[in-house]
Amino acid sequence: MENKVVLERLSALRGAMKENGINYYMITSADCHGSEYVHEHFRARAYFSGFTGSNGTLLVGEKSAALWTDGRYFLQAGEQLAGTGIELMRMQEKGVPTIEAYLKENLQAGEVLGFDGNCVSAEQGERLEKVCQEKKAAIYYEKDLSDLAWKDRPLLPAEPIWELSEEYAGMSCGDKLKEVRCVLEKEGMDCLFLSSLDDIMWLFNLRGADIACNPVALSYAFVGKEDCTLFLQKKAAHGLSLERFGVTIEEYETLFTWLEKKLGTKEENALKISSSGEYLSYRLMKVLSGKSKLVLQESPTELLKAIKNEKELTCSREAYLKDSAALCKFIYWLKNHVEGEEITEISAAEKLEEFRRKVPGFLDISFTTICGYADNGAIVHYSATEETDRRLEAKGMVLVDSGGQYMGGTTDVTRTIVLGETSEEEKKIFSLVAAAMLQLADAVFLEGATGRNLDIMARQNLWKEHLDYKHGTGHGIGYILNVHEGPHRIAWQYRKDAKEYALREGMLTSDEPGMYFAGKFGVRTENILEVVKEEENEYGTFLGFRHLTWVPIDREALDKRFLTVRDVERINAYHKEVRERITPFLDKEEQEWLLEATREL
Amino acid sequence: MENKVVLERLSALRGAMKENGINYYMITSADCHGSEYVHEHFRARAYFSGFTGSNGTLLVGEKSAALWTDGRYFLQAGEQLAGTGIELMRMQEKGVPTIEAYLKENLQAGEVLGFDGNCVSAEQGERLEKVCQEKKAAIYYEKDLSDLAWKDRPLLPAEPIWELSEEYAGMSCGDKLKEVRCVLEKEGMDCLFLSSLDDIMWLFNLRGADIACNPVALSYAFVGKEDCTLFLQKKAAHGLSLERFGVTIEEYETLFTWLEKKLGTKEENALKISSSGEYLSYRLMKVLSGKSKLVLQESPTELLKAIKNEKELTCSREAYLKDSAALCKFIYWLKNHVEGEEITEISAAEKLEEFRRKVPGFLDISFTTICGYADNGAIVHYSATEETDRRLEAKGMVLVDSGGQYMGGTTDVTRTIVLGETSEEEKKIFSLVAAAMLQLADAVFLEGATGRNLDIMARQNLWKEHLDYKHGTGHGIGYILNVHEGPHRIAWQYRKDAKEYALREGMLTSDEPGMYFAGKFGVRTENILEVVKEEENEYGTFLGFRHLTWVPIDREALDKRFLTVRDVERINAYHKEVRERITPFLDKEEQEWLLEATREL
Repeated sequence: MENKVVLERLSALRGAMKENGINYYMITSADCHGSEYVHEHFRARAYFSGFTGSNGTLLVGEKSAALWTDGRYFLQAGEQLAGTGIELMRMQEKGVPTIEAYLKENLQAGEVLGFDGNCVSAEQGERLEKVCQEKKAAIYYEKDLSDLAWKDRPLLPAEPIWELSEEYAGMSCGDKLKEVRCVLEKEGMDCLFLSSLDDIMWLFNLRGADIACNPVALSYAFVGKEDCTLFLQKKAAHGLSLERFGVTIEEYETLFTWLEKKLGTKEENALKISSSGEYLSYRLMKVLSGKSKLVLQESPTELLKAIKNEKELTCSREAYLKDSAALCKFIYWLKNHVEGEEITEISAAEKLEEFRRKVPGFLDISFTTICGYADNGAIVHYSATEETDRRLEAKGMVLVDSGGQYMGGTTDVTRTIVLGETSEEEKKIFSLVAAAMLQLADAVFLEGATGRNLDIMARQNLWKEHLDYKHGTGHGIGYILNVHEGPHRIAWQYRKDAKEYALREGMLTSDEPGMYFAGKFGVRTENILEVVKEEENEYGTFLGFRHLTWVPIDREALDKRFLTVRDVERINAYHKEVRERITPFLDKEEQEWLLEATREL
Repeated sequence: MENKVVLERLSALRGAMKENGINYYMITSADCHGSEYVHEHFRARAYFSGFTGSNGTLLVGEKSAALWTDGRYFLQAGEQLAGTGIELMRMQEKGVPTIEAYLKENLQAGEVLGFDGNCVSAEQGERLEKVCQEKKAAIYYEKDLSDLAWKDRPLLPAEPIWELSEEYAGMSCGDKLKEVRCVLEKEGMDCLFLSSLDDIMWLFNLRGADIACNPVALSYAFVGKEDCTLFLQKKAAHGLSLERFGVTIEEYETLFTWLEKKLGTKEENALKISSSGEYLSYRLMKVLSGKSKLVLQESPTELLKAIKNEKELTCSREAYLKDSAALCKFIYWLKNHVEGEEITEISAAEKLEEFRRKVPGFLDISFTTICGYADNGAIVHYSATEETDRRLEAKGMVLVDSGGQYMGGTTDVTRTIVLGETSEEEKKIFSLVAAAMLQLADAVFLEGATGRNLDIMARQNLWKEHLDYKHGTGHGIGYILNVHEGPHRIAWQYRKDAKEYALREGMLTSDEPGMYFAGKFGVRTENILEVVKEEENEYGTFLGFRHLTWVPIDREALDKRFLTVRDVERINAYHKEVRERITPFLDKEEQEWLLEATREL
C-alpha cells in the first residue's frame, strides 16, 4: 500500500530540487551543532521519509530515494518505509554501500549533490566533497531545501536562557575563559570556535532548554585571545551578566555575516582557529577554512568540562543520592503494585518521573526513560511507544534505564528489577552482569590508563562465559548538561586513529555492562562512578572509583552459584552502603523493604 | 683519575673526524639490521666510551663528548664513564636534552654531523636530517669512521648457515614467499626489502649463529613479484637448496652495488618497495627512497612469523616440556646443594645450562641467563659479572630468567626460587606476582583484543596494592629464533601513534609480571602462553591461553593470606598439570620433590 503522506512530501522536495537544479538531495539526522538529541525543527529526515529512528540519512534522487540506518533500526525502518518507495540501506551489512560509495556509483558528471551544509559535519562534508570531485559533480550546500518543502515546520526553539550561579558551577566564566586561553596559547592557536552546545553552556555557565532533556540553548561562540563573542537568540537571553568577563553577545542568526566581517580583514585572515571537526558543520568549516588557518582538533573545553571541580563533585554526590532514593521508592512501589494494578512500560516510566519530580532541585529527566519489560528489555535502545507498550506482570524482569537533571547534577542509572519468578538462566545472567559492574567499580589503576585498559575489568566476567554485550561499558556524563559526554569512554575496541583519553581524577563515567537475548530478556546494571585519587607514591598516582549511585541490585535475581567469594563480598559491601545512605530518605515501609533488599547474600 | 684507554681511543676517533671534516660523530648500539643483540664487531660505542650496557649512544664533538643511556644503566654508565670526559646524559630525566635537542643547541651552521648510516635506523636518521636542515649543517653517513680508529676490531661473523627442514618449519620457503607476495599484492606493493635478520631466517627457513643466542645469519632480502634475491656471506652458505623456490643468492657485501644496478633502470625505478622503518638503516632508506617509491611500514613477515603454524606449535609444546623439566631438575639440585656447596650466581647459571645441554635437540641458550640473588634480583636487566657475582646462601630467594634454543623451539622462563627463610613481605609479593601471572593466563577475550586490553589482567593484582612493575607484561617469542619478537605485545601504556596488534590464535606471548625492591629483593614469575581458540559463536571468536611452561611456582613463598580462593584454585590446577607432565622426565628423588613442590595449597 502506498504511503501517500510521505510520497507527497517527497514530491514537494523534488519540486524544490528541480527549481534549484539539484539531482540528489541528502538529509541527515543532525542539527547545526552536532547534538546527540535534536529539536523537532531539525527532524526533516523523519518528515520526508516517515522513519522516526534517531539515526538515519535520506538521499533523494530525481526518481529514486534511499535511507541509511544502523542495526538497531532495521526492523522499524523496514516497517516505516513501506509504501514510500524509499530503499532501506542496512548499514554495515555485507554488500550494502555507504552513502559515499552509492554516490560514486550513481552520481554523473555535471550533476549536483545538495544538502544543508549546516546539518552535515565537516568530516562527512569533506568525504562527500571528495566523491563529487572524483565524479566531476557539483556540491550545493548553502540552502536548506527542506525549508521550502516542509509545510508547518516547527520553529527554531528559543527557550529562556539562565545563568548557573557559581554556587553550582564552582568556577566563573572568566576563570574558564582563562583556562581555555591558556590551552590555546600552549597549542599555538589564536582562537577557538565552538559549535557544540554543551561546551558553550559549560564555558559561559549558561543553561537553556532548546533540546528535550538537554539543558542547552542554541548558540555559537568565538573565543579570541582578548575578545569573546557569544551568539544567542537574544529574545531568549535576558539579563545575562557576561560583559564583566569581556563577553559580547551577538544575535544567533548573524553568525555568518559576523564571521564574514571578522575574518574579512587582512590581519584577522591569518588567524589560527581551532575547532572540533566532530561538531563543526561543513558550511562553517568552509567559511572558517576559507578565511583563516583552521585546525580541526578536539576543543580544550571537552577535557576541562569532563574533569569536574570540587563544587561540581560535591553537588553531584548529593544529586545522585537523592536521585537514587527516588529510584528506590519507585522500585518499592513497583514491586508492591505490579500484581493487581494495571502498570505498563509507559505508565511505569511516568510513575518514576513522578518520584523524581518530588526531589528538590529537579529540573527535567535527562533522557527518555528506557523501560523494557521481559523481551523488550533485550532491545538496547528501546523506547516504548503506544504500539509496543506492554503491561508489566508479576513475573520476569523489567529493565529501567533513566536519569534526571537536577540543580546539582545530571544522573543516569539502570536497574533490572525482578517482578516475580525468574528462570535459572535469568538469575545466572543477572548475577554475572552485577558482578561485572562491581568488578570494574573496584578497579585500581595508574594515572595514564584509558578506558581501553579498563573495559576488560567488567567484560571479563561475561567473556569467560563466552558472552558479550555489543556496546561500550562506560561514557562520561555532563553536569546539569548532556547525559552523554566525552572525551573519555570505557570500551575495548582498537580504532587506529581514535585518540584515547586517560581517566583523570574528577571525571565521571558510567559503568554499565549488560546482556541481551532477543525474544527472551535483557539485563543491564549501571552505576555512575567518580574517578578518585587513591595514592601517590614512587610508582605513580593510583586512581580508583567511587560510586555515585546507591540503589540495591535486585537480590531476588542474585544467585551465589554464579558469583565468586569476592563478588559476594563486593555486593554485600555495596548494599551496606546503600542501606546507610538511602534509609534517611525513605518512609517506614520503604525502609523495611530496603533492609531486606540490602541484606547480606 | 683519567681513563687513558678511552681517552686514547677518543683521540684516534677525533683524528679520523678531522681528516674527514666531521665536527660531531655519533655511534649507536645498533648493527646494520636493527638487531636487539649485536655481534662484537658492532660494539664500537662500548669500545670508544668504555660503557658496556646494551643501550647507549655516543656523540663525540671536537672537544666534548656525551653518552645517552636509559634508567637501567645510570649507575653503571656513571662508573664506566668516570675519567673519560664523556658527559652522561640520563635519558627521560628532567632537563636532559635528547640527542636531537642537544644537536639543535650545539651544532653550528656549516658544520658536519657524521655517523655510520648502516647502524642508524631510518627513523632516527630522518630526525637527525631534520635537525641538520634546520641548523644548515651537513650530514655525512656513508663511511664508518670507527673502522679507521678501532684497532683490532673483531671481524664480521660468518658462522655456517643451515636449512631448517620442513619437518620443523612446517611450511616451505616457497609457500611462505607466496603468502608474503599475497600481502604485497593486497597492499599494492611491488616488492619487499628485508633487513631484519629473524624475518629473513623465517622466510627462507634458514638459521645461522652470527649473533650469540640468536640463530640468525647476516643477510638482506629483496622479494619481488617474480624474483627474489637473498644476500648472504657465501663463505658461510654451502649447499643451500633455495633455487627451487626461485631464490637467487648474492654476496652479502654486494648489496649496495646490486641495488644501484637493480633500481638504476627506468622501469625498476618506479617500483613501490615496502620495508620496515624500524629495522631499515638510514643509508638503505636513502638508497631505496632515492630510486623507488619506498613505503615504510611493518613487513608482512612480522605477523606471518608471529602466528605459529601447527607444526611449530606441536614442536614448541614438546620443546617447552623438555625445557621445563631441565629447569625443574636445576631447581631440585639448587635447593639441595645451596647449603654447604659454593654456588654463585654465575656458577648456578652454568649448572642450569648444563641441565639444558643434556636435553636432546639443544642448540644454545636463548639469551644470557639472568641469575640475581637477593637484592641483585631487584635489578631488572641484571647480568652477573665477576665483580658482582654473589654466593647463594640458604636464605631468601634467587631470580632466574633463562631460556634455550632447541630443534623445536625457543624457550624463555623465569622462576624466583626460595633458598631458605623468606620474610613476610617476600611471601606477600611472591604470592601477588604468582597470582597475577595466572590471572592473565586465565583470561578469555574476543578476537580483536590487543595487549593493551589484556595487561590489566595481570597488573590489577599489584595495582590494587598500589604497586607496579616498570616493564611490559608480555612479548612475542620466536621459533628457533629470537627470544623477543613482535609485532604483538602485552603492555598497558597508550602511545598515540603506535599500531596495536590483536592477539591471534597460534601466537605465543610471555606472561611475566614482577616486583623489584632496590637493595632488598626482586620477584618475577614468567610462563610462556600460546593463544588458543576457545569458541566461535554469535558474539564472535573467543580466544584464551594455554601454558607452554610447566615448572612449579615455589610453594615455600606462596601464602594463602595473600591469595583469593580463585588464585589458590588456579595454582593447584596448574601444579597438578605440572606434576602430570613433568614426572616422566625426572628420576626418583626428583619425582618425590616434585610431588611435594606441586602439592595442593
